[in-house]
Amino acid sequence: MKIIVDIGACDNPAKMVRGCVEAAKEYTDYTIVIVGDTEFIKSTIGADMPKNIAIEHASDVISNDDTPTRAIRQKPDSSLVRAINLLNGSDDAVGLLSGGSTGAVLTGATLMVGRIKGVHRPMLTCFMPTAVEGKLVCIADCGANVDSKPEFLAQFAVMANMYVGALFGIEKPRIGLLSVGAEDHKGDERSKATFALLKQSTDLNFVGNVEARYALTGDYDIIITDGFAGNVLIKSVEGTAKMVMTELKNAMMSSLKSKIGALLMKKSVYKLKDRMDYHAYGGAAFLGVKKIVVKTHGSSNEVSTKASIRNIIRMYQNNIIDKIKQGMAVEETDTTNAGE
Amino acid sequence: MKIIVDIGACDNPAKMVRGCVEAAKEYTDYTIVIVGDTEFIKSTIGADMPKNIAIEHASDVISNDDTPTRAIRQKPDSSLVRAINLLNGSDDAVGLLSGGSTGAVLTGATLMVGRIKGVHRPMLTCFMPTAVEGKLVCIADCGANVDSKPEFLAQFAVMANMYVGALFGIEKPRIGLLSVGAEDHKGDERSKATFALLKQSTDLNFVGNVEARYALTGDYDIIITDGFAGNVLIKSVEGTAKMVMTELKNAMMSSLKSKIGALLMKKSVYKLKDRMDYHAYGGAAFLGVKKIVVKTHGSSNEVSTKASIRNIIRMYQNNIIDKIKQGMAVEETDTTNAGE
Repeated sequence: MKIIVDIGACDNPAKMVRGCVEAAKEYTDYTIVIVGDTEFIKSTIGADMPKNIAIEHASDVISNDDTPTRAIRQKPDSSLVRAINLLNGSDDAVGLLSGGSTGAVLTGATLMVGRIKGVHRPMLTCFMPTAVEGKLVCIADCGANVDSKPEFLAQFAVMANMYVGALFGIEKPRIGLLSVGAEDHKGDERSKATFALLKQSTDLNFVGNVEARYALTGDYDIIITDGFAGNVLIKSVEGTAKMVMTELKNAMMSSLKSKIGALLMKKSVYKLKDRMDYHAYGGAAFLGVKKIVVKTHGSSNEVSTKASIRNIIRMYQNNIIDKIKQGMAVEETDTTNAGE
Repeated sequence: MKIIVDIGACDNPAKMVRGCVEAAKEYTDYTIVIVGDTEFIKSTIGADMPKNIAIEHASDVISNDDTPTRAIRQKPDSSLVRAINLLNGSDDAVGLLSGGSTGAVLTGATLMVGRIKGVHRPMLTCFMPTAVEGKLVCIADCGANVDSKPEFLAQFAVMANMYVGALFGIEKPRIGLLSVGAEDHKGDERSKATFALLKQSTDLNFVGNVEARYALTGDYDIIITDGFAGNVLIKSVEGTAKMVMTELKNAMMSSLKSKIGALLMKKSVYKLKDRMDYHAYGGAAFLGVKKIVVKTHGSSNEVSTKASIRNIIRMYQNNIIDKIKQGMAVEETDTTNAGE
């Protein structure tokens, strides 16, 4: 089985390559196909190349400045388009990991891999750390779709439910709906209509509205939201965590006394920093297309690359695509009125 | 001149009362009228009551469980209704501070104080700390209105512009629009239409879209947003800061070595904690009604009560209500097409 990794447009391609090598050593049943500049990849790996690493040359990249739809059509030699062609080309290619621009990866996956029948909109999920050590929360949608209809959001819940189940073996993930208050009637038009749809569902463990301040308590496995508010949520968590850690560092360096104190606390603070580091959780799965597609942060390193590959393997082993297909088939039968 | 303070429904009325006493001692030109249970207020203040403190008895409160519109009508003896009556009753009552439930305060202010002519929707602003020490950013709307139209958001910018100018003396506050990316074309339908309206304005220093992760960098004085996303922004900042600080405390207590380190760092970390503490910035101004109304956090303490009273005085001294009235008059002449 092959996992395709597009390193073309990421910030640190060497780190992604080294992450692939580490993954190849651990997951020996899988071949990691790295798509990018052959010479660069070869020289980064060096003499000790694992047998289950393959290289596919791509002479071009799609950058952040390119318009996604146009670039997908006009750059056949870009690493992303090559990678998706490899993914589409054979049944033993089980998933794609890309460090490219989000817009291009999402557009490429939607246009070239294609939506699963019945899916209104494929959506992007990501994991955030919570106050409970070792426990993550899945944000769905974290930014792929803005102006989502309530029906889309209800479907995000169905897909995220299967995804979190597949990755963590949680049987009935606790699903919260992002809103401006915990009470049932709180929210905007979209969230209120979504609340009603989720409440109807017998398959989902929907526990109600969640205020953003409680999203990371560890009480929820999944937070459902339109991509606009989802993006605001994940970006403000990221920005705040970074700001507090920077301020903490400044506080530590502000006097001789606090410097000595910081030295003694180093280990504990590093542990905290690690917990707040999204790299460890792997990339964002793009759910609702016909193959497994994971978009990793442009600044991905060895750890996040390996974690993303591990997640792809777990999703594959748990038949996530088939499960979503079945889920959509059931949904279609259930909801005669869902149309877009 | 009088400032009315409703302590009826807050979590810690004694703290609010003590904050009023401190404010009365500092701002001797103003009389602070505390509305609540007379006996409780008297016993909290004790023998040493400043001359410029007055007490207005209210035997009832509007709680979080009450339906705002109904409670405003049916509880004439509640501290909030009494306080608003005092505010409305005389020209020398310059502003109201309330620790009551947000819904009740906003409803009461809208129904009883009334909207300024031309204002589509009054809105709630609040301040957040930024990465630049001493610099705050104003979030408008932070939760009063969901499903806002682009015209509403453009008006929020006009009101927040005057408010931040009045409080901090900033001549051309830098205004950003909350979105999912910094590029001009990024956003949902509402934010894109708002972008176009703000871009047209010649009076505002509109600097473009802002991703949530950069909202707190200190590069912006005002962030404009619909109340849904605004609420997600402020609540996730609050939640994350709290989580990181709790984790930091746990990290500090995790070993003997780190405990000693923490002891040495105590002062610096407290300073950081203070900076992240929203109490110091005072309450949330409700702009667009005919008098100054500030809603403070239910858990307000002495510091935030005094800061809110200071803000009310600054707003009064800078004629914020007249300025908003003039701003709305100009806007009405400018925009023939704005109607709701």
